[in-house]
Amino acid sequence: MGTAWWQPVWLKRYSLALATQDLVAGLVVTVLLVPQSMAYALLAGLPAHVGMYASILPLLAYAWLGSSMTLAVGPVAVAALMTASAITPLAVPGTAQYLQLAIQLAMMGGLFLLVVGALKMGFLANLLSHPVISGFVTGSAILITIGQLKPLLGIPAQGQTAIEMLVSLGINVTQLKPATAAMGVASVALLWTSRRYLPSWLEAVHVQRSKADIVAKLAPMMVVLLAIAAVAVGDLDTVHGVAVVGKIPAGLPSLAWEWPTLDSWRLLALPALMIALVGFVESVSVAQSLGIKRSERIDANRELRGLGLANMASAVSGGFPVTGGFARSVVNFSAGARTPVAGVFSAVLMAIVLMGFTGLFERLPLAVLAATIVVAVSGLIDFNTLRHAWHYDQADAFAFAATAVGTLALGVEAGIGIGISLSIGVFLWRASRPHIAVLGRLPGSEHFRNIDRFAVTTYPGIVLVRIDENLFFANVAAVLDRVQVVLLERPEAKHLVFALASVSHIDLTALEALERLTKQLCDQGVTVHLAEVKGPVLDRLKRSELLRMLVHAPFVSLHEATKKLTDVSLRSGSSTEWKVSL
Amino acid sequence: MGTAWWQPVWLKRYSLALATQDLVAGLVVTVLLVPQSMAYALLAGLPAHVGMYASILPLLAYAWLGSSMTLAVGPVAVAALMTASAITPLAVPGTAQYLQLAIQLAMMGGLFLLVVGALKMGFLANLLSHPVISGFVTGSAILITIGQLKPLLGIPAQGQTAIEMLVSLGINVTQLKPATAAMGVASVALLWTSRRYLPSWLEAVHVQRSKADIVAKLAPMMVVLLAIAAVAVGDLDTVHGVAVVGKIPAGLPSLAWEWPTLDSWRLLALPALMIALVGFVESVSVAQSLGIKRSERIDANRELRGLGLANMASAVSGGFPVTGGFARSVVNFSAGARTPVAGVFSAVLMAIVLMGFTGLFERLPLAVLAATIVVAVSGLIDFNTLRHAWHYDQADAFAFAATAVGTLALGVEAGIGIGISLSIGVFLWRASRPHIAVLGRLPGSEHFRNIDRFAVTTYPGIVLVRIDENLFFANVAAVLDRVQVVLLERPEAKHLVFALASVSHIDLTALEALERLTKQLCDQGVTVHLAEVKGPVLDRLKRSELLRMLVHAPFVSLHEATKKLTDVSLRSGSSTEWKVSL
Repeated sequence: MGTAWWQPVWLKRYSLALATQDLVAGLVVTVLLVPQSMAYALLAGLPAHVGMYASILPLLAYAWLGSSMTLAVGPVAVAALMTASAITPLAVPGTAQYLQLAIQLAMMGGLFLLVVGALKMGFLANLLSHPVISGFVTGSAILITIGQLKPLLGIPAQGQTAIEMLVSLGINVTQLKPATAAMGVASVALLWTSRRYLPSWLEAVHVQRSKADIVAKLAPMMVVLLAIAAVAVGDLDTVHGVAVVGKIPAGLPSLAWEWPTLDSWRLLALPALMIALVGFVESVSVAQSLGIKRSERIDANRELRGLGLANMASAVSGGFPVTGGFARSVVNFSAGARTPVAGVFSAVLMAIVLMGFTGLFERLPLAVLAATIVVAVSGLIDFNTLRHAWHYDQADAFAFAATAVGTLALGVEAGIGIGISLSIGVFLWRASRPHIAVLGRLPGSEHFRNIDRFAVTTYPGIVLVRIDENLFFANVAAVLDRVQVVLLERPEAKHLVFALASVSHIDLTALEALERLTKQLCDQGVTVHLAEVKGPVLDRLKRSELLRMLVHAPFVSLHEATKKLTDVSLRSGSSTEWKVSL
Repeated sequence: MGTAWWQPVWLKRYSLALATQDLVAGLVVTVLLVPQSMAYALLAGLPAHVGMYASILPLLAYAWLGSSMTLAVGPVAVAALMTASAITPLAVPGTAQYLQLAIQLAMMGGLFLLVVGALKMGFLANLLSHPVISGFVTGSAILITIGQLKPLLGIPAQGQTAIEMLVSLGINVTQLKPATAAMGVASVALLWTSRRYLPSWLEAVHVQRSKADIVAKLAPMMVVLLAIAAVAVGDLDTVHGVAVVGKIPAGLPSLAWEWPTLDSWRLLALPALMIALVGFVESVSVAQSLGIKRSERIDANRELRGLGLANMASAVSGGFPVTGGFARSVVNFSAGARTPVAGVFSAVLMAIVLMGFTGLFERLPLAVLAATIVVAVSGLIDFNTLRHAWHYDQADAFAFAATAVGTLALGVEAGIGIGISLSIGVFLWRASRPHIAVLGRLPGSEHFRNIDRFAVTTYPGIVLVRIDENLFFANVAAVLDRVQVVLLERPEAKHLVFALASVSHIDLTALEALERLTKQLCDQGVTVHLAEVKGPVLDRLKRSELLRMLVHAPFVSLHEATKKLTDVSLRSGSSTEWKVSL
């Protein structure tokens, strides 16, 4: 409402009271963000501290331009997986080249989002239906879980797809490192239990429910600190070979503007677009579901700019693709964040950690970070949507299943490709089976209804056909095919009336097909009429041949159509005066 | 109508009278087919006789399984161009490897069509809207014309895109061969004149119009024979360096089943699919426009099988991708073809030419074949559709122009990719701007109309919103966004009624969004109702949560909705007995 795009939406109404609430939420989120950011960087094939780098400037950028009050931006699991999948074929994880490509991926993704936002093309996000997104995220979460078995159990393994990884894990299972596996499994058990039961336990000892929820969400940091202590006490890293994070460079990231080379564009443009698109869609859906609870509106174009700048900021500070994450946003929301300033506090706290406390995390076991990931992504596995879809609409259930299986069996890029194709494929398939109805009059009324569903009276020689869909390239052939079948069954027909009350748009392909049909039926002695044409459709038809081919102006109602067409005087000759007005 | 898929549709009613008409048409088409098949083979980068090979078995295959009575199947210009574009990066034109890839391309395309047909997925052809197809064919025709300037004028040139070719032609224009250019330009002039004026001239000397048309269509063969005579008389090939077709192997092609290698699949699957898809769409539209004139129905699934088998037959006999061509089908139609047996006669005649008369065409100048192509494809350039689209629907005009320019500037594969993206893009863009209307009652009636277009009475506290589109993943966000704006303007609203008379389908994404909205508005004190729900939509909603969230059963009409919601006794408490029936 009058806020220019470059003005933070929350600025005008900011107050000290809000700042206090944001500070608390920022603190809580940071405690979760520290282990998650490291874990997701490792998942992306990058050093752990890169995740922390990606958790400072992006949060400030989003706070400036974003529209959600509670979205927590930063590294997330699915984007990290997609990053690894995009770069692994091009460079060796751990090398400077790999990191450079990750930075460029963030830069490209950010640019894409900004361009899409500038062109106001947020509708592109609609390429993905909810079952497809859900199937993709579910497939990715399972894929991530399988991939994390390697650091979690200390088994050497490789492979991109679920099957490759499982086979590789199976072959090498004898090389399992007992100390690592013990630590990993214990962490999963601890995290899982605290997520599942800790809130109820705390409630049982009279802790307030909302506070209990937040304490439970802090479990990852507690497990991390416990594990670090255990490593230090038992020398698990040096003596028992438990892999740990290792040396973390202290201090803030140095800033550098890394413009992607032409070669990088060629190789990474498509993955960058996919990561940006999926990240955007996921992020907006999280933002919306939280926004609804407080009646805050999400502006898709503002989101594009906020997330776009956040990704460019990540690239500038040596990070990788970021977006709004589900788990941390929920924590942010329940911890009472009121504006994105909570993210600003998180960023400041993260900077403090980087400047003074990196040494603390150097002996953190990778198995514990893997456990953090596994427990976090298990919350993304969503078979509810599949069940829901199965009951309501099996085409959607099929889209979910195919996308999830495709992601698992062929990898994330193929998975998202299958998903987009299916979103559109299901739509085209549905459009190719349009609903039309032959109508008759409900006796004693001016209402007309489907002759297959109601006891209605029909008019000899007049066929009334109601078209229940917008007419466009994907369905017009099927509609006209159905109409011809209807006419073949009624050889006595002299008039065909299309009732267009449900039609809001007729595209050129459909218009031309209607013109051909009108001409063809005219040759066969059947006159085509229109009825109940909506205003915008009629406006457009006035610029076409079709109206000029009609022998009678479009009828306002079917009642008028049947009255006039059964009037013998009118049937003998056609009046053309109405065309003067065209 | 009771004809199994493997029975030719025309067999039961075939007669000697029909055979006579088919023979005449077959003869006329063959006279056109001989030069065109050679020309299109050259356009595809193949030896001329390969075109003749592709004009025998495919015609028999289509006659068996196809559904059009008048479609003339065989080599066509656009498919030939796409073939050249697919194979040129992989092999050198003229080599055995190049021919082998062309054969495999036909085999794959045929398999794709058969599989799509078997799965009854003919609706896939709906990926392409008419302006996009038209733009693609227009761009291809211009690209072909520019490409043919090289043989037509005898200028050496190279390049895949229009600009590359024009630049190359410009650089090498000094190497123009005068005798070749004279022959080429003369042929174009002769062909153009006979196409444009010969029918009228013949009519002026009292030849019947239909016969005059056919004679004019035979002009290419006359020009071919004239040119061969000229070459023989003046020794233009040996003395003046006019390039000619050269040695043609006599006799029928030997049959071989060439199964594509895994490598070929990887490289050619996508081009094969594109060629098959474009060929199918073009072919069906030709078949339909001719079928309409004689009230013959085209069965898309039968067409898939007919064209699929035709392409496999082409591959088996050493040919390249074939489909139904526009020019020859029109000739076939006007020459009086009654069934695909006309194609059988063409095939037999073509076999006779191959067995006995190939020597005749060895001194045929390539410039004349180039002239045949240029004049034939000039008929495919269709700026009418662009003009038509510009007046009626500028999004469609944009799709036409972008596809045509993309084809010219980036080549056929990029062009068709742009076209498909735009078909779908325009649809998504349109879907993202759905039409909804806030309604009021027309005074003194039970009719409700848009408050922006009519003087209507509204009900305080009740907002009636008519949704004019099917609700699905691509538009539900936009619809609900609009609804929220409507509610923000009416803070006094207590009831929101969705009028769904125009909604034939609600997909899962939309359903979930509606459920979220209902819940959210409930928290804000606004009750959501449904009205005018169609039968099939209601059947499906009964399997959802949404109906259970409503406090009142869907209203049959808006009249009922307003009557009940203004009834104070009902507004105080909600009746839930109706849910028992769910």
